[in-house]
Amino acid sequence: MASQISKRGFNNSGDPTMYEKYWKQMGERTTIVIPGWQSMSYFSDVKNLCWFLEPEFGKQVVRLHKVVGNAETDGRHIVVGTGSSQLYLAALFALSPANASQPMSVVSAAPYYSSYPSMTDCLKSGLYKWAGDARSFNQDSPYIELVTSPNNPDGFVRHSMVNKTGGTLIHDLAYYWPQYTPISSPADNDLTLFTVSKTTGHAGTRIGWALVKDPQVARKMTKFIELNTIGVSKDSQLRAAKVLKVVADSCEKTRTSSSSEYNESFFQFSYRVMDQRWQQLREVVNSSSVFSLPDFPPDFCHYHGQVLEPRPAFAWLKCERELQDCESFLRGHKLLTRGGRHFGVEPKHVRISMLDRDDNFRLFLKRLSMVQP
Amino acid sequence: MASQISKRGFNNSGDPTMYEKYWKQMGERTTIVIPGWQSMSYFSDVKNLCWFLEPEFGKQVVRLHKVVGNAETDGRHIVVGTGSSQLYLAALFALSPANASQPMSVVSAAPYYSSYPSMTDCLKSGLYKWAGDARSFNQDSPYIELVTSPNNPDGFVRHSMVNKTGGTLIHDLAYYWPQYTPISSPADNDLTLFTVSKTTGHAGTRIGWALVKDPQVARKMTKFIELNTIGVSKDSQLRAAKVLKVVADSCEKTRTSSSSEYNESFFQFSYRVMDQRWQQLREVVNSSSVFSLPDFPPDFCHYHGQVLEPRPAFAWLKCERELQDCESFLRGHKLLTRGGRHFGVEPKHVRISMLDRDDNFRLFLKRLSMVQP
Repeated sequence: MASQISKRGFNNSGDPTMYEKYWKQMGERTTIVIPGWQSMSYFSDVKNLCWFLEPEFGKQVVRLHKVVGNAETDGRHIVVGTGSSQLYLAALFALSPANASQPMSVVSAAPYYSSYPSMTDCLKSGLYKWAGDARSFNQDSPYIELVTSPNNPDGFVRHSMVNKTGGTLIHDLAYYWPQYTPISSPADNDLTLFTVSKTTGHAGTRIGWALVKDPQVARKMTKFIELNTIGVSKDSQLRAAKVLKVVADSCEKTRTSSSSEYNESFFQFSYRVMDQRWQQLREVVNSSSVFSLPDFPPDFCHYHGQVLEPRPAFAWLKCERELQDCESFLRGHKLLTRGGRHFGVEPKHVRISMLDRDDNFRLFLKRLSMVQP
Repeated sequence: MASQISKRGFNNSGDPTMYEKYWKQMGERTTIVIPGWQSMSYFSDVKNLCWFLEPEFGKQVVRLHKVVGNAETDGRHIVVGTGSSQLYLAALFALSPANASQPMSVVSAAPYYSSYPSMTDCLKSGLYKWAGDARSFNQDSPYIELVTSPNNPDGFVRHSMVNKTGGTLIHDLAYYWPQYTPISSPADNDLTLFTVSKTTGHAGTRIGWALVKDPQVARKMTKFIELNTIGVSKDSQLRAAKVLKVVADSCEKTRTSSSSEYNESFFQFSYRVMDQRWQQLREVVNSSSVFSLPDFPPDFCHYHGQVLEPRPAFAWLKCERELQDCESFLRGHKLLTRGGRHFGVEPKHVRISMLDRDDNFRLFLKRLSMVQP
């Protein structure tokens, strides 16, 4: 399996398999059992604007945001999606006027998530089109700006860059969780995207959610998902609900009880792993003259209750000296990474996944430590 | 719940809740159990062209088609989708050239599935556009023709209508199963769509599959689903695999053994229910002078081993006499149906779902029998 993944170049994808270890420790707590006759209907809750949202999933989303303190949920509609990818497309559909003469420009500050341009332009939509780096956007027409914070690939906290009139923001907060970055305050945006993949590691369930202020926007997003996939897997929503519930339980019980059934909360475990990995990576990078890593300012994390340094899900590694194409250079050393060009910048940077299984991450570090200039 | 559904007009949707009864009888046979640490990765089978296809789901698809005899699977690639809706969009993407000067025309003979036009034109794609009724298509440019057989809404067996050069066909065979129509021979098309919703009634799992001859087309469909939702729920694929397995088991064991653990196969059960419902509906319609129903020629079904009449999932009811808007007329009698306009024809017809729960279907018949001209 590992060698196959390497052959196909998949281990540069950010597959969050690191989390398997925690869920094995949790044993049967998150096992789901679904009898054959359950959840057969298309509909989950016909009274809800988002008629395919499983009520239990919606409930656990609200609860977890309250426990973690990373997003306001009051006065928001929850729209569930087949991962946050589908919700991103649903948001573009919802925020673009149906009868404009020109497609809406979609921008994000480089380096940006490598799939945004191809997802946006895949169908050559007349509603919206990718317009590149938000920093160089200088048109006076309406636009949609994607704000990914902490940012994929470089891990920095982000705010809107364009600040013109006629702009609408989509906040992609997939990584705004306590294992990756200090939680400074609850996000309070018009339209925010989250995904189970990066929260708990359950990428294969394909479940994301949007918190949406404007009911008309939430309704249009729901309509898009209806036309795209007639709703979202109920089985995966039920599984995601159970996983989020155990995460919230683990947070609450380690706070309130000294003799808890949980040794540490999910976020204590995952911050600890991320912290260790970043220290190991920095050691390797610092002992070489070939590479460098960004530095992140520490900040107070209201979840952990202390000042902490960010520990992003990706490391944005720079090849120093004359090396121009860092991805090719590293491939020559059997290190699969994703180069800067994919993210709208020069190829001196590559993105490294920090979320792989222990063995793969160790092998990665070993090979990286052997790279000579 | 029922009253809510009525308020929102959902029971005209074809929600296949009729099948809950069979799956309750099957008890624990189709229960799935998924531990928290399983199926976390994005990837299911990196050696497969469709890298997010769960191998067990692919295996059961092939097995069920062989047992039923309704589709050739040899020399086909299986692409799994979030319902067949997503596969329809993936097929449009795959069959439309990326650099054409004009969007590809997409046609289907009226009456056609009511969602095709809005699904096709939702994003105003530059790759393809809805061009209406296949019967009146008279352009000389390349086109995609959708062949839905048996047809939704009217239940008739369909073949391609356009027959010009430059045409590509998508066969939507969602209803080509032995409970709905005689299985005359295995379908042998270039690109065929199926869905678990209409096969077994598990609409909430959102799982469909495509059988695709050309590997380049299968690869492009896979790419679309990657950009749309980064794959398809593993949980639902595992559940669908188990359900298809029990269906195939029920077919094989009732054939080979007289003392089977199955009293009747899934298709024997579901044909029996459909047959009874159609007889009841015809009785009501025949005793009224207000309505009529189409007649279907009987044919030999290789699955059931006898000549049988089609028992479609929808009844295509016609209002006779001067009644022009059958949907409004019936709504006045608290009967929710979907009128002909949605399907590209005049409003003298309405579509009735034959797949509702027993109680709802009985109530529907009762109200229909009380309609006076």
